[in-house]
Amino acid sequence: MTENLIIFNARLVTPQGFSARKGKEMGELWIMDNATIEVTDGLITYVGPNRGEERDGYYQHYWHYNARGRCVLPGFVDSHTHFVFGGERAEEFGWRLRGDSYMDIMRRGGGIVSTVKATRACNHIQLRTHAETLLKRMSQMGVTTVEGKSGYGLDKNTELEMLRVMRSLNHDEHRRVDIVPTFLGAHAVPDEYRGRTDDYVDFLIREVMPQVREHGLAEFCDVFCEEGVFSIEQSRRLLTAARDMGFGLKLHADEIVPLGGAELAAELEAVSADHLLHASDAGIHALAEQGTVATLLPLTAFALREPYARGREMIDAGCAVALATDLNPGSCFSGSIPLTFALACIYMHLSIEEAITALTLNGAAALGRADRIGSIEVGKQGDMVVLNTDNYHFLTYYIGMNCVYTTIKGGVIYPNA
Amino acid sequence: MTENLIIFNARLVTPQGFSARKGKEMGELWIMDNATIEVTDGLITYVGPNRGEERDGYYQHYWHYNARGRCVLPGFVDSHTHFVFGGERAEEFGWRLRGDSYMDIMRRGGGIVSTVKATRACNHIQLRTHAETLLKRMSQMGVTTVEGKSGYGLDKNTELEMLRVMRSLNHDEHRRVDIVPTFLGAHAVPDEYRGRTDDYVDFLIREVMPQVREHGLAEFCDVFCEEGVFSIEQSRRLLTAARDMGFGLKLHADEIVPLGGAELAAELEAVSADHLLHASDAGIHALAEQGTVATLLPLTAFALREPYARGREMIDAGCAVALATDLNPGSCFSGSIPLTFALACIYMHLSIEEAITALTLNGAAALGRADRIGSIEVGKQGDMVVLNTDNYHFLTYYIGMNCVYTTIKGGVIYPNA
Repeated sequence: MTENLIIFNARLVTPQGFSARKGKEMGELWIMDNATIEVTDGLITYVGPNRGEERDGYYQHYWHYNARGRCVLPGFVDSHTHFVFGGERAEEFGWRLRGDSYMDIMRRGGGIVSTVKATRACNHIQLRTHAETLLKRMSQMGVTTVEGKSGYGLDKNTELEMLRVMRSLNHDEHRRVDIVPTFLGAHAVPDEYRGRTDDYVDFLIREVMPQVREHGLAEFCDVFCEEGVFSIEQSRRLLTAARDMGFGLKLHADEIVPLGGAELAAELEAVSADHLLHASDAGIHALAEQGTVATLLPLTAFALREPYARGREMIDAGCAVALATDLNPGSCFSGSIPLTFALACIYMHLSIEEAITALTLNGAAALGRADRIGSIEVGKQGDMVVLNTDNYHFLTYYIGMNCVYTTIKGGVIYPNA
Repeated sequence: MTENLIIFNARLVTPQGFSARKGKEMGELWIMDNATIEVTDGLITYVGPNRGEERDGYYQHYWHYNARGRCVLPGFVDSHTHFVFGGERAEEFGWRLRGDSYMDIMRRGGGIVSTVKATRACNHIQLRTHAETLLKRMSQMGVTTVEGKSGYGLDKNTELEMLRVMRSLNHDEHRRVDIVPTFLGAHAVPDEYRGRTDDYVDFLIREVMPQVREHGLAEFCDVFCEEGVFSIEQSRRLLTAARDMGFGLKLHADEIVPLGGAELAAELEAVSADHLLHASDAGIHALAEQGTVATLLPLTAFALREPYARGREMIDAGCAVALATDLNPGSCFSGSIPLTFALACIYMHLSIEEAITALTLNGAAALGRADRIGSIEVGKQGDMVVLNTDNYHFLTYYIGMNCVYTTIKGGVIYPNA
């Protein structure tokens, strides 16, 4: 659903551009007081100073929104999540915190296997209903576009089902969040293929990915490239095949050990390399050179007590850095945008301006959509966030607390209660 | 305002007792499915198995609340905050993050001085309106009792005014959060007394504290006992005078250096020693022996990138540990109960059960009110939290996200939107 909307008296706060911002550009925001933003049929048609025209009948077919000096930002883009799944792993989280080993947890039926089992056991409605609850909370925190990955099916039917759930949510006329679907069949090796990872990669390439493409179920293909899961060589093979089929490429890279995932992402011209806790200097350099977005997921590092990715160094090296939540039922059950801001600025040493760019325009670029979303500019979607303050520093200063007053999606206003 | 209320089909989750729980007792919760909680005129009059009586007219003068298996906990007690103040220090937070020194920040007008200036410039209504906004957000996160400190006036009139604001909020019949006021005139040495700390302590003892007592404006007296602020000797002198006047005692102890604040708190039989990032082993032992509550404030350590207090060790040493937010406009502008749970369990190694006790019964004990609040037991106030899940592990598992579905204050139901 889209609407005509005129916002006036806004404090506009937005990055600018139709592609990712890199290095020190990331900290440069366009800030304008007494700004008007006009949205026509869901698209932004004017951004500039108040013109007073809202007062003389020119905008009679528009909703009127007086921002009263509050900050208006582009809607947040959460470009890395796993928000479609069955079951939960709350108890397991407690086991991990008290120091139980991964093997112990697996023996008690925990780990990703438990989510795969629960997801396979869910029907379409169950998966969809749960995902919808999570989407609503995202919207309340200002998210207007989210990426969602398959990867808890690890068999043809369930992988396709997860993607169909996302398509069905995306077809809801009243959706508050757009979904960008990613195929992550290579999230783990299922029990049925234990010890035969290459066979599983073959299976995905031959039997699953063509169907995903045929039905237009995913825009991107992603791999969990990690020691003991999918090797650099297996990842290259799968992603090369994906590219040939027309997928955009993403990569879970260098999360646990420095395997060379960042380098591979740059080599394959992926849109993004994600996690990067242990990315090498050479890998960071390669991402900067290639323009592959470095997507950092500080909530996961926080949850796992891992060191944070070197966000400051990456920006200084000229990377385009995006921030995302990694919402998933295992390592990081959190979609907290406020906590993402706090971790980025307090622990990864980004400025608040850089963090805003990372959660808007650069998130959009990590989804190949910087031409459509991620900033408040003429021609882009009318997806915006109104803060409950005129001071955007509150996004980090008010630690872990939601400052979103109203989320606007395609010109439609969704006030927070 | 109080009501009659019958909650049935609850999963009851509560610590038990009319005093703080210490050491391993902290992890022992009373959990009961299909529980009924009866609140009459705001006080709990029955806790036990469902009796089915809600169906046959016995409770016609009660509100009925079907918890449908959701967890019902005692309302959270935030036993250390500075929620009454003027101004904000959002920009300063950014300066600090980028590494500006405290002296630099002071030179630009930042630091506590700026809050003192802004607070002195506010009238009653301004202070009250701002505080009310913060209280509403606390209530949405399940807080039913909060402690609030003076300490941004540092002169007689403004210190009394801050306490009057709290009294006026406490007299609001429709309040969702009870306020326990603490006099913290010894929060810092005001410019007027620079270099004359002893004179300022004299001034507080002779001219301010008697008036606070006379008008019944504060239950507790607190001191910021820290190197370069108030010494152990000055703190002992002020708190001894306070005790003689009938104040309960609290102490900001060992936050920045191990000064011996924990030992002093135990010596003076304070109800709590707060912060304790650098408490010595002897200090921890003294708190455990004396039964002084160790109040830990992990949000502040998080915001300042400081190491967390040794919560696990304190519990193992037999301390009664409480958790609180330290909400204040400088070092920690956050009242996030969800993030407090996350930090306590992930970074201070408390179990979720211990963290629940720390935020309920032990918070109550830190305010001398364990006989009235902090657990769901007959005779206590009908202050409760209903979670949006039947699994209380979500309080940490759903990291940084609010799991509170409904807050109940004196039997009155406040649903979250």
